[in-house]
Amino acid sequence: MILRLIFIFSLFLLYNMHNKVFSQNNSDKIVLAIHGGAGTILKKNMSDSLEQAYVAVLTRSLEVGYKQLKDGRTSIEAVEASIRVMEDSPLFNAGKGAVFNNEGKNELDASIMDGKTLKAGAIAGVSTIRNPIVAARTVMERSEHVMMVGDGAEKFAEAQGVEIVAPSYFWTKPRWEALQRILERDADKTELDHQANAIEFAKIVDEKFGTVGCVALDNYGNLAAGTSTGGMTNKKYGRIGDSPVIGAGNYADSQVAVSCTGWGEFYIRTVAAYDVAAQINYLSVGVEQAAKNVINKIEELGGNGGMIALDKDGNVAMPFNTEGMYRGIVTAEGKIVVEIYAAD
Amino acid sequence: MILRLIFIFSLFLLYNMHNKVFSQNNSDKIVLAIHGGAGTILKKNMSDSLEQAYVAVLTRSLEVGYKQLKDGRTSIEAVEASIRVMEDSPLFNAGKGAVFNNEGKNELDASIMDGKTLKAGAIAGVSTIRNPIVAARTVMERSEHVMMVGDGAEKFAEAQGVEIVAPSYFWTKPRWEALQRILERDADKTELDHQANAIEFAKIVDEKFGTVGCVALDNYGNLAAGTSTGGMTNKKYGRIGDSPVIGAGNYADSQVAVSCTGWGEFYIRTVAAYDVAAQINYLSVGVEQAAKNVINKIEELGGNGGMIALDKDGNVAMPFNTEGMYRGIVTAEGKIVVEIYAAD
Repeated sequence: MILRLIFIFSLFLLYNMHNKVFSQNNSDKIVLAIHGGAGTILKKNMSDSLEQAYVAVLTRSLEVGYKQLKDGRTSIEAVEASIRVMEDSPLFNAGKGAVFNNEGKNELDASIMDGKTLKAGAIAGVSTIRNPIVAARTVMERSEHVMMVGDGAEKFAEAQGVEIVAPSYFWTKPRWEALQRILERDADKTELDHQANAIEFAKIVDEKFGTVGCVALDNYGNLAAGTSTGGMTNKKYGRIGDSPVIGAGNYADSQVAVSCTGWGEFYIRTVAAYDVAAQINYLSVGVEQAAKNVINKIEELGGNGGMIALDKDGNVAMPFNTEGMYRGIVTAEGKIVVEIYAAD
Repeated sequence: MILRLIFIFSLFLLYNMHNKVFSQNNSDKIVLAIHGGAGTILKKNMSDSLEQAYVAVLTRSLEVGYKQLKDGRTSIEAVEASIRVMEDSPLFNAGKGAVFNNEGKNELDASIMDGKTLKAGAIAGVSTIRNPIVAARTVMERSEHVMMVGDGAEKFAEAQGVEIVAPSYFWTKPRWEALQRILERDADKTELDHQANAIEFAKIVDEKFGTVGCVALDNYGNLAAGTSTGGMTNKKYGRIGDSPVIGAGNYADSQVAVSCTGWGEFYIRTVAAYDVAAQINYLSVGVEQAAKNVINKIEELGGNGGMIALDKDGNVAMPFNTEGMYRGIVTAEGKIVVEIYAAD
């Protein structure tokens, strides 16, 4: 009887210790940040109802990812869950809502990286995978490869049980009309023509950018980053941007996790995501300064866009040099903050 | 008459000054280094005649690239010329001589980067472009993109006048037999299975690695890097390795040019080529130490391979952790050195 009481009391103590440690870690450490793309996002072009729709999806994405972290799951699981919400929304240029290429097809790219193991997975140029971020994670965890493209990537994903959809799943009216507008004006033009009057095409959605991404710090002190995109409206020639390129559009190690959005070519040339980590690791600068330096370098070269970066202590940087960036964060205190426009 | 004599004498002086400046720059600054892949390259598996054939092509590649630099052309032109020689040789896993994928096709990848402008070009998964390095340069110079894959990349290259060949151009007996040997043994095995007895498959050619690359420093103090590969024998699922990934298998800026060869997945995960530059730029370590640190990091993660790195002062590092690496250099003094095996 006494032994039984001691046993029960021990269980009670253990339970309390566990809860204390757990809740302490929760409030002290877990952080999640997302972006839904940077670009020509101006308050004057946005209706109240559309703004509310964006805020609702961003909030939902943050809640879903944060719940994973609160439930003790890893940063990789949180990143995947959070990005799936944005991929499933037609508002963002990723998953459903992806832009159309020159041939009227949706070609999707995504990547994910685990800061603890430096493992990474990426897919590019796929047209039948409902959630590209899931396929990227599957490449990371169930193949010996990091990057797969096109039909091969689709075959692998299907063989691994990743959800396949008809290409028509990705058809949305605003994206289709965006392609038609560009084709009518200039069949050779892609979204990279910064000479164009961007606002003209940005009345409802910004077709230039719109990549989504997530960075997370879990209860175990591990970081992860994920990025997913539909690329550029009217893109040709099997163009691949920075989103599926580890080091360019996405990177995570033990110190920092980074997800980028913007004019991809400049992010590849500056190895943008990894450069944030290199500055933190080699120059001991803070995440805010490191991220800002990279955006400045991109601007000097003539590019634009933004990024989110989260360090191992939970500090978040979200710099961008465009008019706006859909973005949000769940702070270490569990507070949800969503923003769209640049601060005045 | 006197005026005419003064004019002729002035021309003579100018000619001599020009020659002096030119030859001084030539001997002081221009440097070119190449690799033809790292891997299980052992003296005991190599016949004298095969070794001589390798040395001859490597020497020719160095001579051709060096001539470009001596003639006052840019490091980009030298890198392209030097790599073309290796692509055109069936001895290396790039261009003619590329390995076969699981479907019995040759899928080629290449990239190039200009250290002066930070411009870059890359193609991946192409089957009809005779010299992938030429297509990569064309993407860099004549498109607004950095990376193109598959059919799209081929369409772009053809439209730009890059030489197209029938896929059968890439068929070579040793590579075909290598695929058959692997398929007979295990249809699911790719070249990434390091549990296998590598020597068994490496009697004539090493099918695991064999990427080629070049780094050059020109008369104007500018660096460039290029890399070209056929990937892995029996590769599946549209796998892309590090060679066409800027920052991973190839990188150049104003301080250093880097080309990598090895187990590509590890080079992507460590952002290997850019990490050499980041260490030089942020930690002020020498090129030798920076390159060695990256190879050590790759080894710690379980990968292997090598790289060549050339800094703006003409210092060259060529570390590898495999049994051998086909490699060569034309020094600032114009001396050609070719090596294959690890130093004892």
